Amino acid sequence: MSILTAVAHTVRALAADAVEQARSGHPGLPLGCAEIGAVLFGQVLRHDPSSPRWPNRDRFILSAGHGSMLLYALLHLSGYDVPMEELRRFRQLGSRTPGHPEYGVTPGVETTTGPLGQGLGNAVGMALAEALLAQRFNRPGYPIVDHHTFVLASDGDMMEGVAAEAASLAGHLRLGKLIVIYDANRISIDGSTDLTFTESVADRFRAYGWAVETVDGHDAQAVAASLSRARNTQDRPTLIVAHTRIARHSPKEGSAESHGAPLGEEAVRALKEAIGFPPQPFYVPPEVAAYFAGKRRAWQRARREWEEMFAAWSQEYPDLRRQWDEAHELLLPNGLEQELAELDADKPMATRQASGRALQVVAARVPYLVGGSADLTPSNNSDIKGARAVAAGQWDGRNIHFGVREHGMGAIANGMALHGGVRPYAATFLVFSDYMRPAVRMSALMKLPVIYLFTHDSVYLGEDGPTHQPIEQLESLRLIPNLRVYRPATAKETALAWWHALRRLDGPTALALSRQKLPPLPGAATDEASFARGGYVIRPESGGAAVRLVLVATGSEVATAWTVAERLEEQGYPVRVVSVPCREVFLEQPESYRDAVLGGDGARRLIVEAGAGAGWYRLARPGDRVVSLERFGESGPGSQVAEKLGIGIEGVLAAAKALLAAK
Amino acid sequence: MSILTAVAHTVRALAADAVEQARSGHPGLPLGCAEIGAVLFGQVLRHDPSSPRWPNRDRFILSAGHGSMLLYALLHLSGYDVPMEELRRFRQLGSRTPGHPEYGVTPGVETTTGPLGQGLGNAVGMALAEALLAQRFNRPGYPIVDHHTFVLASDGDMMEGVAAEAASLAGHLRLGKLIVIYDANRISIDGSTDLTFTESVADRFRAYGWAVETVDGHDAQAVAASLSRARNTQDRPTLIVAHTRIARHSPKEGSAESHGAPLGEEAVRALKEAIGFPPQPFYVPPEVAAYFAGKRRAWQRARREWEEMFAAWSQEYPDLRRQWDEAHELLLPNGLEQELAELDADKPMATRQASGRALQVVAARVPYLVGGSADLTPSNNSDIKGARAVAAGQWDGRNIHFGVREHGMGAIANGMALHGGVRPYAATFLVFSDYMRPAVRMSALMKLPVIYLFTHDSVYLGEDGPTHQPIEQLESLRLIPNLRVYRPATAKETALAWWHALRRLDGPTALALSRQKLPPLPGAATDEASFARGGYVIRPESGGAAVRLVLVATGSEVATAWTVAERLEEQGYPVRVVSVPCREVFLEQPESYRDAVLGGDGARRLIVEAGAGAGWYRLARPGDRVVSLERFGESGPGSQVAEKLGIGIEGVLAAAKALLAAK
Repeated sequence: MSILTAVAHTVRALAADAVEQARSGHPGLPLGCAEIGAVLFGQVLRHDPSSPRWPNRDRFILSAGHGSMLLYALLHLSGYDVPMEELRRFRQLGSRTPGHPEYGVTPGVETTTGPLGQGLGNAVGMALAEALLAQRFNRPGYPIVDHHTFVLASDGDMMEGVAAEAASLAGHLRLGKLIVIYDANRISIDGSTDLTFTESVADRFRAYGWAVETVDGHDAQAVAASLSRARNTQDRPTLIVAHTRIARHSPKEGSAESHGAPLGEEAVRALKEAIGFPPQPFYVPPEVAAYFAGKRRAWQRARREWEEMFAAWSQEYPDLRRQWDEAHELLLPNGLEQELAELDADKPMATRQASGRALQVVAARVPYLVGGSADLTPSNNSDIKGARAVAAGQWDGRNIHFGVREHGMGAIANGMALHGGVRPYAATFLVFSDYMRPAVRMSALMKLPVIYLFTHDSVYLGEDGPTHQPIEQLESLRLIPNLRVYRPATAKETALAWWHALRRLDGPTALALSRQKLPPLPGAATDEASFARGGYVIRPESGGAAVRLVLVATGSEVATAWTVAERLEEQGYPVRVVSVPCREVFLEQPESYRDAVLGGDGARRLIVEAGAGAGWYRLARPGDRVVSLERFGESGPGSQVAEKLGIGIEGVLAAAKALLAAK
Repeated sequence: MSILTAVAHTVRALAADAVEQARSGHPGLPLGCAEIGAVLFGQVLRHDPSSPRWPNRDRFILSAGHGSMLLYALLHLSGYDVPMEELRRFRQLGSRTPGHPEYGVTPGVETTTGPLGQGLGNAVGMALAEALLAQRFNRPGYPIVDHHTFVLASDGDMMEGVAAEAASLAGHLRLGKLIVIYDANRISIDGSTDLTFTESVADRFRAYGWAVETVDGHDAQAVAASLSRARNTQDRPTLIVAHTRIARHSPKEGSAESHGAPLGEEAVRALKEAIGFPPQPFYVPPEVAAYFAGKRRAWQRARREWEEMFAAWSQEYPDLRRQWDEAHELLLPNGLEQELAELDADKPMATRQASGRALQVVAARVPYLVGGSADLTPSNNSDIKGARAVAAGQWDGRNIHFGVREHGMGAIANGMALHGGVRPYAATFLVFSDYMRPAVRMSALMKLPVIYLFTHDSVYLGEDGPTHQPIEQLESLRLIPNLRVYRPATAKETALAWWHALRRLDGPTALALSRQKLPPLPGAATDEASFARGGYVIRPESGGAAVRLVLVATGSEVATAWTVAERLEEQGYPVRVVSVPCREVFLEQPESYRDAVLGGDGARRLIVEAGAGAGWYRLARPGDRVVSLERFGESGPGSQVAEKLGIGIEGVLAAAKALLAAK
């Protein structure tokens, strides 16, 4: 038995044992892809388990995350800090071996996978980041950034639209260091892929501009040869279609049954007999252990050689080294906060314009910021002026044209953030945040500092009508744990929102931005300290009388509330306006602060937002009111639509009067 | 000038005028696709504008909905009830000519489009419905169902993953009556598609199994010839790659500028000169009007011939005719409600199992019900037992294997519902509702009676971990206007939820269903009348004492609350349990009913749901509490995860005690 076959069989046995012990899991893929995994970890990958964050490591992404035991077994054998004890605790609470691979939980796991297609999208982002960094940092004789991104993807990944979008863009960008191995086992949960998936994946990827190889996935030598050719193919990404048999060498080989349930004691016994392994669980043959011990020494050597090169490069190019550190630690330059705060705000301006202006300030000072739009660049104001578009061979570019591929954009942005060395932003209309929602969720779950720019944030966008007018999107983004959602009311708040987005490194931030111009609010009490609390009194009530009404609003509705407050004060009612640019942050404040902002029992609260209102009742007491949109919009000029739906000035004024009258 | 060219030029002039008048809109596509539109409406389509709901009409879908003026101009010329006055009111509030085509607003508009890719997905659903109905209803000599589905799609549509998913399935199913014309103008908002989209769409569709034609989109004869070949291609769908010039014949021809903004007065003048039209706005040449007058007579004749055939068929096959009417009016058989209500509920059962059981009862009595899962059939319990899988040439099937294509599934289900004659359901895990969210929104916007089955509805799914554990999905579905979301607590509630989903014809319904077994609740006060109010007292407080605590819950948390209530009553506190299977419906009830259910001021409310809680505060008063999940889940056995996150029995009991102590 060759050593790679021994490794493969070890993976099979460990995966079968762990799934059996957990009484839960997916043995089919680890058994079917064991040779592929053995070749990758036993021969191809250039990484160092003793230094899992080594920047120039090859990345390996198990896009088919349900096959997690393949990865855990290989990480364990390779020497990552995934001890046998953790394999025994597969899928148990608090283990390093959760059901699907989770970034941040397990050393060596490069991204969280499981929702199909996302991993492939992440990998495109990683390969793109590699190309961008190589251009920025490599110098003659110093290939500081020079690694590959490998993916193992399943039939399910290949069926998902997000993977299709990302693969199309990868082909367009000619990402030569991206290599995807497609585990074509022709089995999915419903049964044979003949039931639903008979396209030629190979031809499809050729149509995207990829190089395509076809190989017997159980022939380790053939897999190795394919991977070698793929590494030498530098002008395009490579897809290796690896024909495999799911649950290979077990009695359930070739059956959909093996996909997502333990094989059962008897089948595990039969498997071990078939591969010539002893029956004892979690067995690693000594020659396999010895083989990886040797690999570990070689990997460490290679990493240390890189570090020597990196040190010499740092000496020769201290400026580049400084930029490198800034980019990898996402450091922000001194004075940037001040520059953003000082942007003038005395002209009517859409917050998308204000965002575009802030972006220019940031981009000029933060060279590692790169990003773009899903084909709405001029509408999203998301272009970095003076920078080139990212294109094959134009890796000094900073503006990424993602195409009309929102979901792919999100997954790619995640991959870029995971790779490190760049800070990605991604833009589209707020209503189309729905198209990329699974990727936004992954940003939040992985705590990635991706910045999302969502413009055209309400029915005020007008004539494009209900398909383009967001209603539920703002609130539904707020529901995603660990995503911060800002809806700035003014140019000033927009600049501050950008600053807070930049400063936040432990999760994604979304900015909801207006299409329409918003009036300046002279005398607005916006300062960094107030803004940082998520909600604050932007316009105190006039005079010394006790406040009767507190208008709580976000974004464009703050200006509406402001006008309503002025009208009501003309009629003798003291009215306060509260801006809540980030409700999540406001809710984190002490109750005493929130109560002080929102007014005491003597004042009624009227909460106004041009979107679904369900989440605002938390700030309302009995007798208060939420004015929101609980229906789809309409096509027509924006202010007419808003008035018709009751969230324009007249509608809010009427609601306010009714509330005051009810007292 | 040939008559088709005259028609094309009329479309150009009308589109340019309408966009100009609205000062808003997308002239580029209507000008670029005018010949294609002229051939379709002037020559190819078999429909009857005087009877827009004629079941056997050809369907035409403008997937690139931003080019709405192309469609409106053609509908107007063809004689649909879209008078010139409405073209003049393009994009105005209350007009029949909204910014994007809207189903239900404009006669002749077959589906709402604008969010790219959806229309193509809808068309796949329509073509699939056509195939299913043809098999069910056609008899020798009676081709009652025999029509085509035509799509006009843009570069943007082709970039979207949802279109890729749907096209892959259409190829697999060999939907020969589906014909997609791809307006390959190579321009999108960001500029030339060279920036981001250089794949070979033709090769990609060939890889899906489509026939592919390439044609000059401005050569009406060539377009007509291509369409004719496509109509004769019966064993696979056809993609016609039509090369066009955006904004053709205007000074902005070929420029991205023309995509989404009025051409400007001067350019409109130049356009009219170039096409030999007088400068007056909204001009229709008499020969064009006369041509369509003739077409209208021919169309009426054809429709009447079909009606004669249909009448004869009805006579010969009265049973089929009855089934036809039932299927097209979505009639429900007598006794079905009773059958569902009588399903026994005294064994522990996951609500997904209960749903699967209800599905069998329904499917046996409702032959027009068809549907399936995005490759989770056994997990979703979504199979109709004893029915065949839908496949090419196996159109008597009822189980659709959508593949791992959630988004495509949603768009296809919408198309089936739009076509009529079938009632579609679509199933996946609740967490993956995010993948299909834009399609679910379209169901709601179009008021389509699609039924969504979302199983594995909470962290109780356990070991698969946070990527698979829904947190924010349940609440975020509730935010979609006009979508009804049910989360049944028991097998009984599940059967009733199915009944309410079936009865609802003016919008979609989603069922959130548990993976895990739920205990039976002996003595539960579930009856149809209570359930129909969205929330009700499922377990009254014991004894005569005034209720101290009201536990409000949904789904699996009702059983948790029940146990907590029992424990607290043992300690002498009278505790009530309220089940809220559908919060939207409960909120529609009179306040008096809601207050009676939720208890008066003497009782505290504790609201429990294993998901994001933001939307529940509406039912809470100061001092009440919401126990919810505001973080991602963890991988581990479900009940351990639930307890760790505080929504298991012990956590809820502790919260309840704290609430009682605080009084």
